[in-house]
Amino acid sequence: MKLLEERIRKDGNVKPGNVLKVDSFLNHQMDVELFSEMGKEFRRLFPSERINKILTIEASGIGIACIAAQYFHVPVVFAKKSQSVNLDGEQYITRIESFTHKRVYDVIVSKKYLGKDDHVLIIDDFLANGCAAAGLIDLVKSAGAVVEGVGIAIEKGFQEGGRLLRSKGVRVESLAIVESMDDQTGEIVFSSQNQ
Amino acid sequence: MKLLEERIRKDGNVKPGNVLKVDSFLNHQMDVELFSEMGKEFRRLFPSERINKILTIEASGIGIACIAAQYFHVPVVFAKKSQSVNLDGEQYITRIESFTHKRVYDVIVSKKYLGKDDHVLIIDDFLANGCAAAGLIDLVKSAGAVVEGVGIAIEKGFQEGGRLLRSKGVRVESLAIVESMDDQTGEIVFSSQNQ
Repeated sequence: MKLLEERIRKDGNVKPGNVLKVDSFLNHQMDVELFSEMGKEFRRLFPSERINKILTIEASGIGIACIAAQYFHVPVVFAKKSQSVNLDGEQYITRIESFTHKRVYDVIVSKKYLGKDDHVLIIDDFLANGCAAAGLIDLVKSAGAVVEGVGIAIEKGFQEGGRLLRSKGVRVESLAIVESMDDQTGEIVFSSQNQ
Repeated sequence: MKLLEERIRKDGNVKPGNVLKVDSFLNHQMDVELFSEMGKEFRRLFPSERINKILTIEASGIGIACIAAQYFHVPVVFAKKSQSVNLDGEQYITRIESFTHKRVYDVIVSKKYLGKDDHVLIIDDFLANGCAAAGLIDLVKSAGAVVEGVGIAIEKGFQEGGRLLRSKGVRVESLAIVESMDDQTGEIVFSSQNQ
């Protein structure tokens, strides 16, 4: 998606350790008009009328998912990073390793909001090693629901997450795929896939 | 706001300890079409053209704030509940006590996204003892910015937060004010203010 790639080039910051900071418009300060264009694009990429729910994970996926949901006319459920899992059996639970925070989270969704009739589009801001997306897919499958696809704002194409998910037959659509980036020059090269 | 009150009556659950569960449409599963009506109402209540930023707090404020921001044409910044505060002076920091989780958080906003030229509308899902709102006001003031008002989805009118903030001259507008609720009968009485 040209608009997002241009914005990443303009306002993104490449930091050592393969970190791409986009907190001026994507995941701390949020440009909701950009999100609206991204939401339209997700709808174009996932036109299926079967999609009846969007699943994301707190915190930075929520804004993108909510704006996108307006084009799908479906509710959003966000998975919670839990410090105190309630073991009463009313929640689906999975474990996710965070690339950014170098730690492991328990992630939960109430069984009330994910069930076997659901056709779920998963939306998140980043796809890197794929742990968050794999965890969300795990939650959907625990519920006996169907994963219709995974929509990502920014995929780090040089990490294995996207390849891994696609090799399992998951439909992954990323609005911008970073092929390489250089923290010395600040240069960011995007995959030509969406150009 | 009639629409929200009706939805709370229909889908809200009163639990012991003055807990109102609205996680089927507000803060776990999110009804973005309801959020859109709430966003329009926030704009009607806060028509000031000076408002150039919406501030909320992760995680459950983000969806409401992002949808509302579409009617203000301004960016959203969400304050982060931090476990590891970066003490390099690049963040505004405050401390908030959570009513729901019975614990204390450090809450941060990058100095890049809040400054003295900002006129900020604070949006959150709940107002109870007022600690979260007071913390967000504190962040705005640390930045030398102006608090234009506080917009709340559901205020617990029987707790002191709303009265406290209003007594300090803060303009607080809540879309639904719960005057009392009964976990035995499930009855919820709303303040007549917005009827």
